[in-house]
Amino acid sequence: MNFNLTKELITNISIKLKKNELGVIKKMMAGYHPADIASIIHKLDSHNRNTLFQIFSSEKSAEILLELEDEVQNYILKNLSSKEIAEKLIENLESDDATNIISKLSLTKKKEVLSHIEDVDQAKNIKSLLTYDENSAGSLMAKELIKVNINWTVLRCVREMRKQTKNIDKVYSIYVVDNQNKLLGTLSLKKLLMADESEIIKQIYNSKIFYVSENINREKVSIMIEKYDLVVIPVVDNLGRLIGRITIDDVVDVIKEEAMEDYNMASGISETVKSNDNIATITRARIPWLIIGLFGGIIGAEIIGFFDLKKNIELAFFTPLIAAMGGNVGVQSAAIIVQGLASNSIELESITKKLFKELLVALVNSIICCLLVIVITYLLGYSSNIYLTVSLSLMVVIIFASIFGTSIPLILHKYNIDPALATGPFITTVNDILGLYIYFLIGNYFLK
Amino acid sequence: MNFNLTKELITNISIKLKKNELGVIKKMMAGYHPADIASIIHKLDSHNRNTLFQIFSSEKSAEILLELEDEVQNYILKNLSSKEIAEKLIENLESDDATNIISKLSLTKKKEVLSHIEDVDQAKNIKSLLTYDENSAGSLMAKELIKVNINWTVLRCVREMRKQTKNIDKVYSIYVVDNQNKLLGTLSLKKLLMADESEIIKQIYNSKIFYVSENINREKVSIMIEKYDLVVIPVVDNLGRLIGRITIDDVVDVIKEEAMEDYNMASGISETVKSNDNIATITRARIPWLIIGLFGGIIGAEIIGFFDLKKNIELAFFTPLIAAMGGNVGVQSAAIIVQGLASNSIELESITKKLFKELLVALVNSIICCLLVIVITYLLGYSSNIYLTVSLSLMVVIIFASIFGTSIPLILHKYNIDPALATGPFITTVNDILGLYIYFLIGNYFLK
Repeated sequence: MNFNLTKELITNISIKLKKNELGVIKKMMAGYHPADIASIIHKLDSHNRNTLFQIFSSEKSAEILLELEDEVQNYILKNLSSKEIAEKLIENLESDDATNIISKLSLTKKKEVLSHIEDVDQAKNIKSLLTYDENSAGSLMAKELIKVNINWTVLRCVREMRKQTKNIDKVYSIYVVDNQNKLLGTLSLKKLLMADESEIIKQIYNSKIFYVSENINREKVSIMIEKYDLVVIPVVDNLGRLIGRITIDDVVDVIKEEAMEDYNMASGISETVKSNDNIATITRARIPWLIIGLFGGIIGAEIIGFFDLKKNIELAFFTPLIAAMGGNVGVQSAAIIVQGLASNSIELESITKKLFKELLVALVNSIICCLLVIVITYLLGYSSNIYLTVSLSLMVVIIFASIFGTSIPLILHKYNIDPALATGPFITTVNDILGLYIYFLIGNYFLK
Repeated sequence: MNFNLTKELITNISIKLKKNELGVIKKMMAGYHPADIASIIHKLDSHNRNTLFQIFSSEKSAEILLELEDEVQNYILKNLSSKEIAEKLIENLESDDATNIISKLSLTKKKEVLSHIEDVDQAKNIKSLLTYDENSAGSLMAKELIKVNINWTVLRCVREMRKQTKNIDKVYSIYVVDNQNKLLGTLSLKKLLMADESEIIKQIYNSKIFYVSENINREKVSIMIEKYDLVVIPVVDNLGRLIGRITIDDVVDVIKEEAMEDYNMASGISETVKSNDNIATITRARIPWLIIGLFGGIIGAEIIGFFDLKKNIELAFFTPLIAAMGGNVGVQSAAIIVQGLASNSIELESITKKLFKELLVALVNSIICCLLVIVITYLLGYSSNIYLTVSLSLMVVIIFASIFGTSIPLILHKYNIDPALATGPFITTVNDILGLYIYFLIGNYFLK
């Protein structure tokens, strides 16, 4: 059932939609995965999007909705009544996905949809999930899970599991709880398959279990799931009671989002944009760095203006070189620290040790660069005053930029500010300006 | 069993190791997860690393080995004989992990270790896994899996599964095959739990299944697993026979690696380095971009040198601004395209459409920047010749840099070269130089 999205397929579907051959389309897509139908919907125009979405059964359309991009999702939800949303879509979703959809609605519509949900348990679950902060473990959690009592026999356990699995798509893990619903451990399918029917769960369950508390940061959840190679992790409240579970597919989304945020920061893009977002969104995401860079450039111009360039006009030739190198080195240093912080690998090491090492790297890099500059500018026929000024400045600039690039993300991290902020506009511009200042200071000394 | 790595713990363990209290340490760490023991080992000095690693049982030490960083892993493997590696470590690992470890050994040691593996099946599995290219689906695959024949009854199925699970850590999925081992579908645990013992698998299995072929690129595997929210995906050979499975935890590693590679490229770091790598490694990863930047800067100097600056000395003040803005805009444009390509979201759209949109964004951004430059330089008292030249150049530079930043990654992608290459050194330097050239061209025209 592997699927290929082609231009021909889209054209074919658009034609059929125009001819109103809905039955044919429905039949054709019967075997398609909701994610594939979503990718088809993305390629259609708004009117066709709605028509196509409407032809599927409630259960399937609920799954398709989940796979749509926010913009398209909103468009489709706008065209449905609160009753339709509740009965066709929400009631067919697991609690975490249902909450995700409802949280995107306006306050009034949210209340209306909640009041239309007929399954009392689900409405209760959704209401409780809606209370979590979007960065908390609770916000990633689903309420549906399989749990068995520690005092049950294997036989009863299998019977109860049959009942519980009716409401659940996939069984990831079987949790073991006591009479107060306190999480005690897990039961492996393997053990269950191999045990006698009369054995008590207590004798075969595994009490070593990782769990997260409902209010910890979602990034910590992803670090745990990754570190321990888990597929699912249970969530407990502050009394240790089992209240939900987080699956790895939601965590993969978190990992991708975090990586994308860091990448955007490093590339000077201030909010997450996709290449198919509209022009206003893309401009809004890009203009802040450009303006910071612009101000940096103007400050740089003022610094150059202070110096009497006319006497040593050749010094002006190298200003872009000095500025660029300062920026480049700063970004490299900051990027290494930001990645180290993100992967939790530099927790225990001291800042002094980090800075000293960075200083050594900077020294090696700056010596290599200086020698190159001296040789090349000598060959190009510049005077010794010029190449000494340029190479000495370059050395000082590289060292300063390294120290800045290393320490700023560490300082930001210490004060709980996202260290990735230091990789983009800030560090490049600061180092550009600092570089020019050092350059003309040294130039003034050597060439006066 | 949640774990916290503290300085006190490390000090405590180091002291105990010094006193040779190995029994105490072993007892203390009995409940620790291998990943946590690995994180402790990382914080010890080389001698202690070896001592601590040696105290655990074969099974546990095999799992710890998997969690160690490459450098530490190599160090520990060097101190073990081929026989020890085979019997203590490899035989206790699943085929994918075992292959991963063996692939890091030297050719001679590899052969020795393979010859010491007593489990014939495992040796065969590892040998076959070693043949895959490191970027292929096959390289992520494990051979261990649960499969049942389509003609079996539920009762026989459960009995056979009991046998098969003996060699497997976690059961992710139950695969259904025919007599020729051709993959036909999956059997859900839910269905198995709810079926009668006498039912035939054929009646309850699910024939809709996603699978990958052994030789496709591993990035495609991660795209599929993510898109369809899978936890595991079966791997088939070119005859459709079931030969292995890939689990999501391995795919998470691929996702993280790819994200890190792109991030490094965007930050001018040419190979994956960690902040605790040694100075030579970090320098080697950073110097290429610096040298490219250096040459760019020198070419920039030559361009400036062509122009008679003395007559219009103020023009020199703005060279860093022009160069920086060109670089910034280019990196932004390239980053958006690289992310779009990575998430597969711009497959169907045409390059012309992308370029046109980018052009519009560039136009909006450049107009905003130009107006700002005019106002500020006017207030700072620069002559109209200067601010007209600077703002007009800025506009042209922003537009050119956008076109370059958008088209270069698209072109690289077309020729199967990693488009992320365009985000780092290349695009910034090219745009720096191009920017300066445009600036002085315009300056020459206006100020002659």
